[in-house]
Amino acid sequence: MSTQHTSRDFDAELRELRANLLAMGARCERSVQLAIRAFVEDSPSLAREVIELDRRINRDEMECDELALRIIALRQPVAFDLRLITTALKLVTDLERIGDEAVNIAERAEETEGEVHRLPSDILARMAELAEGMLRDSLDAFVESDIERANRVRRADDAVDKLYGEALSQMMDWMAAHPDKIPAAVRAMSVAKYLERIADHATNIAEEVIFMVEGQDVRHRTNAPKPLPM
Amino acid sequence: MSTQHTSRDFDAELRELRANLLAMGARCERSVQLAIRAFVEDSPSLAREVIELDRRINRDEMECDELALRIIALRQPVAFDLRLITTALKLVTDLERIGDEAVNIAERAEETEGEVHRLPSDILARMAELAEGMLRDSLDAFVESDIERANRVRRADDAVDKLYGEALSQMMDWMAAHPDKIPAAVRAMSVAKYLERIADHATNIAEEVIFMVEGQDVRHRTNAPKPLPM
Repeated sequence: MSTQHTSRDFDAELRELRANLLAMGARCERSVQLAIRAFVEDSPSLAREVIELDRRINRDEMECDELALRIIALRQPVAFDLRLITTALKLVTDLERIGDEAVNIAERAEETEGEVHRLPSDILARMAELAEGMLRDSLDAFVESDIERANRVRRADDAVDKLYGEALSQMMDWMAAHPDKIPAAVRAMSVAKYLERIADHATNIAEEVIFMVEGQDVRHRTNAPKPLPM
Repeated sequence: MSTQHTSRDFDAELRELRANLLAMGARCERSVQLAIRAFVEDSPSLAREVIELDRRINRDEMECDELALRIIALRQPVAFDLRLITTALKLVTDLERIGDEAVNIAERAEETEGEVHRLPSDILARMAELAEGMLRDSLDAFVESDIERANRVRRADDAVDKLYGEALSQMMDWMAAHPDKIPAAVRAMSVAKYLERIADHATNIAEEVIFMVEGQDVRHRTNAPKPLPM
């Protein structure tokens, strides 16, 4: 193998894979933003935009998978490079599911019957903002093999879980006081749950990154070189 | 490469990977069974068993990942074999999350305050039974590259979604009639949601299998040989 030439091609392919993942991640982030606005602002047109965007995200998943497989098949990477690419395969699944959760939020937005769901909207907006930041950080952690940042994502997940608990208990009190509004309250609880799951997916990504960077020391003790600088 | 010898080793490794995945899947299935019994029968000891089992499932995930990576690195498989192994990497993530959802159910079981959650227990039990069957079928579909069976899993998912809708609407009516029981009803709704997500993970597995078997014709048009018989 002409290593000089091959390694330059290989670097270009890895750059492409990373860029595709980041682009997909940015679309997921935008989708979450649109979805929560659709719900809080009661906007069917924003909801439709989310559903439209999800088609693109599904295509992104197929393209990233295909590129990752092509790189494995053609370059036959080992050690850290192989782990990088198989991590990418796993991340893509989490990203695609974040897109699905945004669609779930958008679908609840389409069912709303007026104001009722706005009650916990400040909590929902805060959860969405945290989840979007976690998503961004988890992908940056991947691109930079940055364990520090990945750990920050895990800590943020605790904050999201706490907000989720608050949203639930607000909604439960509120249902008890307004039994006629239970369907609307249940919708708001569902949205809180979807946001909590988006944060979980970002946390999964962060954990995959930690394993990617540290994993070979723990699990592949033989012939594991240090991670390459990316 | 001494293909005769290598290919025999390779087959043995693939068999090991498949066997590990099936064993992990069987533990996930047992975990779901125990969790729903813990909730319906209000049994803290069953709930603890689920949490114990989840540690083993997490270890399974690491071991399957490690084996799949080792096979890729050592055997440098291409075409269908490569897709088989990368599919395994994705399946393992779904299985691990099924284990997590079982833990979620077990945790709700630990919070119960008596009988209240039993109200929709027949629906929950039916959902659990369907989800367990889907999990089994999706893994069999993987092992046998059986698209027919994978499609059966997708159809069963519609039935689970329908039961989930029924559980929600029963619970909402019931909360309206018994506002003092709202926390218990919300717990039962959460359990229904976890079961619905377990069915989703099984559906994801089924869809990965369909893509594994059919995918290269659609997405990898160049030099894609027919799937090998397994």
